[in-house]
Amino acid sequence: MKREHKEEMKARARNIRLTVAYDGTNYHGFQRQRPPVTAVQNVLEAKLEKIFGDSIELAASGRTDAGVHAYGQVVNFFTDGRIPVARIPLAVNSLLPDDIVVLEAAEADAGFSARHSAKSKTYLYRIQRGTFPNPFTRHYAWHVGHPLDVEAMEEALRAILGTHDFSSFRASGGAPMSPVRTMYRAELAEKGDMLEILIHGNGFLYHMVRNIIGTLVNVGQGRISPEGFRVILEAKDRKKASPTAPAQGLYLHSVEY
Amino acid sequence: MKREHKEEMKARARNIRLTVAYDGTNYHGFQRQRPPVTAVQNVLEAKLEKIFGDSIELAASGRTDAGVHAYGQVVNFFTDGRIPVARIPLAVNSLLPDDIVVLEAAEADAGFSARHSAKSKTYLYRIQRGTFPNPFTRHYAWHVGHPLDVEAMEEALRAILGTHDFSSFRASGGAPMSPVRTMYRAELAEKGDMLEILIHGNGFLYHMVRNIIGTLVNVGQGRISPEGFRVILEAKDRKKASPTAPAQGLYLHSVEY
Repeated sequence: MKREHKEEMKARARNIRLTVAYDGTNYHGFQRQRPPVTAVQNVLEAKLEKIFGDSIELAASGRTDAGVHAYGQVVNFFTDGRIPVARIPLAVNSLLPDDIVVLEAAEADAGFSARHSAKSKTYLYRIQRGTFPNPFTRHYAWHVGHPLDVEAMEEALRAILGTHDFSSFRASGGAPMSPVRTMYRAELAEKGDMLEILIHGNGFLYHMVRNIIGTLVNVGQGRISPEGFRVILEAKDRKKASPTAPAQGLYLHSVEY
Repeated sequence: MKREHKEEMKARARNIRLTVAYDGTNYHGFQRQRPPVTAVQNVLEAKLEKIFGDSIELAASGRTDAGVHAYGQVVNFFTDGRIPVARIPLAVNSLLPDDIVVLEAAEADAGFSARHSAKSKTYLYRIQRGTFPNPFTRHYAWHVGHPLDVEAMEEALRAILGTHDFSSFRASGGAPMSPVRTMYRAELAEKGDMLEILIHGNGFLYHMVRNIIGTLVNVGQGRISPEGFRVILEAKDRKKASPTAPAQGLYLHSVEY
């Protein structure tokens, strides 16, 4: 958005904040794409425009990649439309395809930005264990057929807690920004054949969670020791870490403001 | 199958039993359909033929309708093909689309029939509660937006235990067969926003589980009392029960021999 256009948007009467869940399987990520490529943002903006009667430009807490899911993506937009906030979810959901659901809508201060006001984010990653891929979770988890040493993975995972330079887990070629982030929680839970890894931090570099998970699975398979995982983190070198875990296991769980 | 064709099949050297899981979302049920309509059986037979090198005709424990899923459908087929039984799952799964998975293969006696040897079956039905449909379970559960009285549903569900004439829950226009069946287990479990109903019986009439669930949800919403549910069962009249619950919540959980 150009600056003057941004100012024009902000001059509108209302700033609406939405919490949105989506199954990312059929989308090229969250961020708006040129048709015929479809992103969640394209669909959501088109339906909101029908309801609010003005052009809608969403700002999101952040992008999600193709195939990545969200339980609680947060977006905001400026509008002069008059529909009461309590009626927004039902109105939008009645137009949206069933893989995108608006869970909540709220009036926000004019200064609220889903992106810039975010204090922290939580991601969830699901790994499906078992000899064969589970047909019901093929779009919702990463199938790992070989046995995993869960205790070793937990030990390694603890290394990311606190403040670190996460360059080792940053996508090569990402935008130049500080690689230092603080992780508040990093937990692993076993739920039947699923391993669920929850990571809560003040910010995440591009592909950071998926690069951590890719390396963690190598710890689980005994190819990297928990201590080796720590050494990789401290090396601040993407080449030391393992390949990026697949998109379909990743969920933007929530955004905290 | 005509009788002589059936005898020809049975003259083959091996009778192989498979346990199969499938996501029924993209299929017109289990039972073979004429192309371009695709059923799970069409796909499974085509891939087995590639591996065994002879024509394959599957017999299944029973049909499942379009959109209905299976964790443990059981099928058998006669073949002269020589692939060792331990190698079958991996070989077939490498050819199958990722919404169908062969979990197990075993040599069976010549007299084994997935259909006729079945002693009992277990079905699972999933109901998703919450104001809005969960985008991740839209193909895997029935979304019921209004609150449900789970205790009333449990009380009603107990009425089906034991031996009953299930005519009230039988699809109108089904094949003429005895409507008497025996239910060994009927249990309801709450798992987060999901209600899971497990029913184990010696056999099921067409649409029986979905008709029971449709009526049970009306109990949960207070439109039918638990006692009223029992009266509907005892009426032996399909017109007394509620509409059929949707297919996507239903799973053939297992077949017992």
